[in-house]
Amino acid sequence: MKSPITTIGFDADDTLWHNENLFEDHHNKYCQLLSEYHDAETVEKVLYETEMRNLELFGYGIKGFTLSCIETAIHLTQGEIKSEEIQRIIDHCRHMISHPVELFDDVEEVLRNLSSKFQLILITKGDLRDQERKIAKSGLAAYFDHAEVVSEKTAESYARVLERTRVPVKQFVMIGNSLKSDILPVLNLGGHGIHIPYRITWEHERVDSTPHEHDNFYQIESISQLPDLIDVIAIDSII
Amino acid sequence: MKSPITTIGFDADDTLWHNENLFEDHHNKYCQLLSEYHDAETVEKVLYETEMRNLELFGYGIKGFTLSCIETAIHLTQGEIKSEEIQRIIDHCRHMISHPVELFDDVEEVLRNLSSKFQLILITKGDLRDQERKIAKSGLAAYFDHAEVVSEKTAESYARVLERTRVPVKQFVMIGNSLKSDILPVLNLGGHGIHIPYRITWEHERVDSTPHEHDNFYQIESISQLPDLIDVIAIDSII
Repeated sequence: MKSPITTIGFDADDTLWHNENLFEDHHNKYCQLLSEYHDAETVEKVLYETEMRNLELFGYGIKGFTLSCIETAIHLTQGEIKSEEIQRIIDHCRHMISHPVELFDDVEEVLRNLSSKFQLILITKGDLRDQERKIAKSGLAAYFDHAEVVSEKTAESYARVLERTRVPVKQFVMIGNSLKSDILPVLNLGGHGIHIPYRITWEHERVDSTPHEHDNFYQIESISQLPDLIDVIAIDSII
Repeated sequence: MKSPITTIGFDADDTLWHNENLFEDHHNKYCQLLSEYHDAETVEKVLYETEMRNLELFGYGIKGFTLSCIETAIHLTQGEIKSEEIQRIIDHCRHMISHPVELFDDVEEVLRNLSSKFQLILITKGDLRDQERKIAKSGLAAYFDHAEVVSEKTAESYARVLERTRVPVKQFVMIGNSLKSDILPVLNLGGHGIHIPYRITWEHERVDSTPHEHDNFYQIESISQLPDLIDVIAIDSII
């Protein structure tokens, strides 16, 4: 007999609400801004290199991303970028941070349904204030027993959250759009993972292969399919 | 009979290690950078106004501060600032984030002493990744039963941490350099507060008066005086 599922963890950005589309929009505007100096492919490539170099120090989130955009713009224009263009990059940062939260279809109904039967916890990574603001704006906070913002999603950080909330990992299933951050670390700990891909995956979150062969791995197309799948997993896990 | 003290909360920046001195150094360099445009007093005033305008959106921490510095520099030079000067502001941001943690004298000895008798928790506000990095670099993590990074230090955020750690507020004493963030919210909840002023107090953290008349308020000059004072409070609280 396996343990029953008692607790469902949810990622937030691009799992409950749109996020990467804001970055996509920013990238388009940013490439446009630098189009007289370089083609979009070069801009994207150098920006990504700058982001990766700064990631350890700046972490995830819009402010660190914006600093990387400014640095890249100075570098790619050999210092020719105008200060008003740098101001435009910062203005767009502010626009992204203050953007309304756009929930996916059916999210609230799914959470209402599941919260009556399971403990729900929100586990998101990134900037503390930005994530807290989005949780508050989403109107979904009341469905969660616990919400945790972590600086990285690793097996260790999931183990810490589960220890803190006293949830045995075998009773835990994590839902998210990133195989790398939401699914693989939890499978490695012995929990379950349900992957819901988003239209866009940030290059840094990409992995080489999907763990289709793993017993505790599931994939669905939209969050509206979640309650039925959870029913199956929950029944399966107590056989 | 009052409740005995069981748990001591510590602020981190400017309570366990130096922090404001890094900002002081940055301010000096920043005023120097803009000295051909404006006197230091004007630069400081306008930078502070920008920071306060951005605080709700950007939160505390070096990255948001750096974005405010760039905006202020563009504004104060009417766009004349050179992109290499903006790069210098970002370089200094990186310097601040990667700076070694400089512990105050006697901190480790005091924590070793107190951790044998009390539950110690670290409660710090600001950027999640920066604070986690400083806690790791400090070498002090092992003395704490729990560490929490919050986006604001209010009565509500302290109440959440105490609920999470299951500590009755009457058994709790908070130690820190900021009356506004470390002491007053905890006194308001019914806990104890021990203020250890730092040489520099950021304007945003200043309050009009010190609550000397409050029964649960104490003030000392350095952390080395803490164990003796805690002994007195702990004895006093069980009479």
